[in-house]
Amino acid sequence: MNNVRHPYKIIKYNGGTISPVEDEIAIEYPLTIFIDGEEFATMVCTPTHLEELVIGFLASEGLIRLHSEIESLSIDENLGFAHVSLKNKQSINKDFYSKRFIGSCCGKSRQFYFHNDVRTAKTITSKMTLTIEQCFQLMNFMQNQSTDFKQTGGVHNAALCTADELIISRTDIGRHNALDKVYGYCIREKIPRADKIIAFSGRLSSEVLLKVAKIGIGIILSKSAPTTLGIDLANDLGITMVGFIRKDQLNIYSHPERIGTEGRVPRP
Amino acid sequence: MNNVRHPYKIIKYNGGTISPVEDEIAIEYPLTIFIDGEEFATMVCTPTHLEELVIGFLASEGLIRLHSEIESLSIDENLGFAHVSLKNKQSINKDFYSKRFIGSCCGKSRQFYFHNDVRTAKTITSKMTLTIEQCFQLMNFMQNQSTDFKQTGGVHNAALCTADELIISRTDIGRHNALDKVYGYCIREKIPRADKIIAFSGRLSSEVLLKVAKIGIGIILSKSAPTTLGIDLANDLGITMVGFIRKDQLNIYSHPERIGTEGRVPRP
Repeated sequence: MNNVRHPYKIIKYNGGTISPVEDEIAIEYPLTIFIDGEEFATMVCTPTHLEELVIGFLASEGLIRLHSEIESLSIDENLGFAHVSLKNKQSINKDFYSKRFIGSCCGKSRQFYFHNDVRTAKTITSKMTLTIEQCFQLMNFMQNQSTDFKQTGGVHNAALCTADELIISRTDIGRHNALDKVYGYCIREKIPRADKIIAFSGRLSSEVLLKVAKIGIGIILSKSAPTTLGIDLANDLGITMVGFIRKDQLNIYSHPERIGTEGRVPRP
Repeated sequence: MNNVRHPYKIIKYNGGTISPVEDEIAIEYPLTIFIDGEEFATMVCTPTHLEELVIGFLASEGLIRLHSEIESLSIDENLGFAHVSLKNKQSINKDFYSKRFIGSCCGKSRQFYFHNDVRTAKTITSKMTLTIEQCFQLMNFMQNQSTDFKQTGGVHNAALCTADELIISRTDIGRHNALDKVYGYCIREKIPRADKIIAFSGRLSSEVLLKVAKIGIGIILSKSAPTTLGIDLANDLGITMVGFIRKDQLNIYSHPERIGTEGRVPRP
């Protein structure tokens, strides 16, 4: 059984010819997370690595920092329920999590944080560096890992890498979920992150940059475009963001000091 | 001033050459909606047609059905705040909106609805039909309207159409927001929807199909792929979904009876 795509009967029109065919469609699966018996959130996702997804989601929401803070975690795949029990039975004020943090002391982009982001997204001070050639190589590793995107045209990938190797790659219909799966893997396996890179298929928006900061990664590579708030947050949070990586082209949007080019990089 | 993209100084690497260049980046703008003085939600969006976005969002959430149910709506573009006052001062239980509806009577895909979807997403009975040629033509109209996607590589479009013409097109970094802007336009301008079509750039996921059902549209066209839950909901909700529209190819995923092909369409 494949948990990423599923065959559906569809009607295909191709240059004048109509025929019924079987096509592989990206699976979208609802998962509802209950914390200490109470419904906390429902996400739609690709049903792979669900335990990592839940762990990464809890950490992204600021509910845990370490795997040991989870008392129990069980997943009912038929119903799409994840039951989590936390060691620290804090009362969870969901209202707080969705409230925008409106500060007055920081730069423009910091005005956008949610309250839980302020607690969990830290400025990155990683001394990690990459060459341009390594950027292209890691993006190729990530893309070659994924046959699912080519099959369905509808999933995202996030890969955890060292400067020279891909460690793991995670797939999801939601780009935030793909990152949460990587985050959950890091937390469960106690992987240090300051010397790692993420290679990613999705757009570099504010939510992606906040997640990268929470994971604690200093360099993110993507084939897609950034947003203005993504660039502003990358600058604020100390993250090197490299996007539009395609063939022999790429763009460096923030903190170019981590991309070594034999001293040839001019400051923007 | 352009509200869709903004110039940023970046570093470009192109086939061995590194140079600082100015690039156009998709604007990501946080908008916080207050309802009767209370913070209700924060979304990130493209800051165009914000009033339509807020109206469409309120309708998607099931808080209004008609424009006349809004007592006042004002937008502070500098702070990114929308202040809404509703005529019917219901107490808004946010918890209720995010709770998954777990029914026992309906098909598999209906198990996924949220509580507000159950109230607002109705089965479509539109008798509207389109030819294959009209599908291609409307998608071309939508894509030719949008110079912004070509410039930034990062925005989505949703266009409200008749069988032969594009009425309006709306752009946003979020595909759901683009649809909410179309929805808000329809509500404010009191546009009948049973004889309309939406041409769309984004993926056909559950959330998109639920929104199309709420708007009351029977045919959605997209250049992107669907998800399994998107197809299941389209079947349940009576929506004709046509995806992967590219050059002279397209796929019909649900309710093919609305796509006229001179009786040549075999049932899947």
